[in-house]
Amino acid sequence: MVADVVTMEKLVSLSKRRGFVFPSSEIYGGLGSSYDYGHYGVLLKDNVKQRWLSAMVQERDDIVALDSSIILHPQVWEASGHVGGFTDPLVDCRFCKKRFRADQLDEAQCGQRPSKHPGETDDCDLTEARQFNLMFETRVGAVEETGVPVYLRPETAQGIFINFKNVAQIARRKPPFGIAQVGKSFRNEITPGNFIFRTLEFEQMEMEFFVPPAEADDWYRYWVQTRYDWHRRYGIRESHLRIRPHDADELSHYSSGTSDIEYLFPIGWSELEGVANRGDYDLTAHTQSSGTKLEWVEQDGSRYTPHVIEPALGVNRSMLAFLVDAYDEEVVADRDRTVLRLHPQLAPVKAAVLPLIAKDEGMVAKARALYEELRVVVSAEYDDGGQIGRRYRRQDEIGTPWALTVDEQTLEDDTVTIRDRDSLAQERISIAQARTALLERLAQPWATPKPE
Amino acid sequence: MVADVVTMEKLVSLSKRRGFVFPSSEIYGGLGSSYDYGHYGVLLKDNVKQRWLSAMVQERDDIVALDSSIILHPQVWEASGHVGGFTDPLVDCRFCKKRFRADQLDEAQCGQRPSKHPGETDDCDLTEARQFNLMFETRVGAVEETGVPVYLRPETAQGIFINFKNVAQIARRKPPFGIAQVGKSFRNEITPGNFIFRTLEFEQMEMEFFVPPAEADDWYRYWVQTRYDWHRRYGIRESHLRIRPHDADELSHYSSGTSDIEYLFPIGWSELEGVANRGDYDLTAHTQSSGTKLEWVEQDGSRYTPHVIEPALGVNRSMLAFLVDAYDEEVVADRDRTVLRLHPQLAPVKAAVLPLIAKDEGMVAKARALYEELRVVVSAEYDDGGQIGRRYRRQDEIGTPWALTVDEQTLEDDTVTIRDRDSLAQERISIAQARTALLERLAQPWATPKPE
Repeated sequence: MVADVVTMEKLVSLSKRRGFVFPSSEIYGGLGSSYDYGHYGVLLKDNVKQRWLSAMVQERDDIVALDSSIILHPQVWEASGHVGGFTDPLVDCRFCKKRFRADQLDEAQCGQRPSKHPGETDDCDLTEARQFNLMFETRVGAVEETGVPVYLRPETAQGIFINFKNVAQIARRKPPFGIAQVGKSFRNEITPGNFIFRTLEFEQMEMEFFVPPAEADDWYRYWVQTRYDWHRRYGIRESHLRIRPHDADELSHYSSGTSDIEYLFPIGWSELEGVANRGDYDLTAHTQSSGTKLEWVEQDGSRYTPHVIEPALGVNRSMLAFLVDAYDEEVVADRDRTVLRLHPQLAPVKAAVLPLIAKDEGMVAKARALYEELRVVVSAEYDDGGQIGRRYRRQDEIGTPWALTVDEQTLEDDTVTIRDRDSLAQERISIAQARTALLERLAQPWATPKPE
Repeated sequence: MVADVVTMEKLVSLSKRRGFVFPSSEIYGGLGSSYDYGHYGVLLKDNVKQRWLSAMVQERDDIVALDSSIILHPQVWEASGHVGGFTDPLVDCRFCKKRFRADQLDEAQCGQRPSKHPGETDDCDLTEARQFNLMFETRVGAVEETGVPVYLRPETAQGIFINFKNVAQIARRKPPFGIAQVGKSFRNEITPGNFIFRTLEFEQMEMEFFVPPAEADDWYRYWVQTRYDWHRRYGIRESHLRIRPHDADELSHYSSGTSDIEYLFPIGWSELEGVANRGDYDLTAHTQSSGTKLEWVEQDGSRYTPHVIEPALGVNRSMLAFLVDAYDEEVVADRDRTVLRLHPQLAPVKAAVLPLIAKDEGMVAKARALYEELRVVVSAEYDDGGQIGRRYRRQDEIGTPWALTVDEQTLEDDTVTIRDRDSLAQERISIAQARTALLERLAQPWATPKPE
């Protein structure tokens, strides 16, 4: 495990205890590498997606949104090279009957010899490595006896490439412009089980930026920096984030440049986002396969195939990075607290409203009224269960940036305290101003209080 | 076609022309009953989901969110009855090789005899009807040679039922409480091709509300009315919306009451949303199959299996209803205009900013500055292309409620006109107040100007 980074064990425990994320299909014994997202997990995940869409689409002129189908025409995956080449080398253990990635045997455990790794012992009698395609296959049954074989998309990007011409025409755009998409993808992988770092189904945020070939290098550098800045803007610590350009021998054959934005996960430095200069590979492949020319025609009649810069990351992995980076434990007034120092715009709940004494009808009435006013504009929570200190700690643990408490003084002068999750400072504000005060705090750039 | 309702043809045409929705995988000849969503389609669809989530989760105390996996443990679908009973009777035409629903032959066309329906002619030599399961099947390949057969969920509801106990504990809820979920489902259906009314993959908004058995009837009536009101709140006309309780012989064997909220689609009155009293069927089935008791234990130790009220609708179908209901054509000042009278909170773009004269640098500077201020808080568009009347019409066609125009007077007194999509009224407001004015208009309840 990495120093000064929360362990995966602690994070998994908090995620389950507070209902962010938990194993899927638990009452049936689970399904490997599948997770369900509870209330706070859904809210956090939605916020990650909204912040990405805001930065990529809403706050820009040059990118439009798309939502293409999960099941596309099967020829898409022939043309893209996924049918032929999207494979992992796998071996079976004849002894324990489990299947492992041939290139990751050191990390894999033989099911019958818990202390032994399959690569290390002859007990685990391994088959020769064979290539297994990572796409899930199914059949659309409307045409023939057996149906037509189709695939669950392993990435959203191809749905963008095949719509390039269509979108450029409809949206009246010319290069440089981009198409952004958020959606589920599926990969039938053998995974080492690092929580939601890699799962069978996952959500992607991918953007394909189409540019004149001569501008590709500049745009590639632009997008590496812009995406790095986005992670920083939402609170990822500088010391836990780095840009790693791929070496020449790591590059895909079609890429003239790829950089990983890496994050210091509990499993060590790993890819958080990839930014690739894909050249004209994808549009050329689909032009050849479909017969539809995916090119740009200038007003003077000259033509070119745009090059593509692709920043792509997983929603779930991004959420994991934000959780890891936000997790903190400290002692405050002789009591332990666990706190998620999430950027307020990412926090699942923006404000908690707490009547100091849950049995005081006056306080309850004021607190309920305030809560019902706030929840129309932001995600808010009302909590009257237990000691006030315990209620604060429940909110700290899910990252709620502000708690508003109705107390004796409220009944006299209609003010409430607003407590800051990070500084623990409490300030009195008037109830009438609470909504505005909250929205103003939420709109401010966040000065992250996290130590580097 | 239905009188005073837009034809499907016109709606499909607008949807494609402006990039709301278009057939998927077009450059490869398409894939039946699959559609991709363009920029405005994504924005509109996201707004529909957000309004549902706001009404169901954010603005209430008693419902929490969940996002369960698309691929669940296969035993889930055994227990739910989908493996055994989720089928359609299909026949094959030996002549044209197409497959049809045996119960819908009147609507189906023989591929070799375009003028003939399969049911009407012996030319279409039909096989006996056989039951085909509507679930897409695939295999998770990590365990055995052939992999483990699993299904793409045909509904999100089962992912909620199997998490009932988990969520109740983590979220500290007791009946009556609900769990809401938005997500994709898949059905391998033969469809008659009514645009996005029914598609192979679609998004659902389902909420399962768990109640003490004695309260089930009251809650069922409550949810029928509450969901009806939601459609009205977002602008669906009263004359195009009705509640149709199922007859006794229509009810599922487990349901003691189901009502369809029907909408007057171009294809006639059809289900928009279903609200069902499912009794204890689902929790009992999963208790028996999993061995985990999905029941509620009171503090006094008494136990019961909650009954479930389920309001469920498709995002895509809901979006179709909002589009159909919003579509209008009228003549204004001797010119035709097509206008989408969408509720402002549903409209893909809230505000367009238009410099009256696109070559006037002063106007452009003011308009850009205003646009860049607005787009941080709402979806906004900047348009300087063509005559101002044409730009207004482009915005009308996508349902933009407000257009802000920078003109000569703006350069003198820093005011802009704000034009209302529906009334066409123009008002002058100060640029400094534009953002606030827009947010206030957006927050107001919408007095629908649509004629019944």
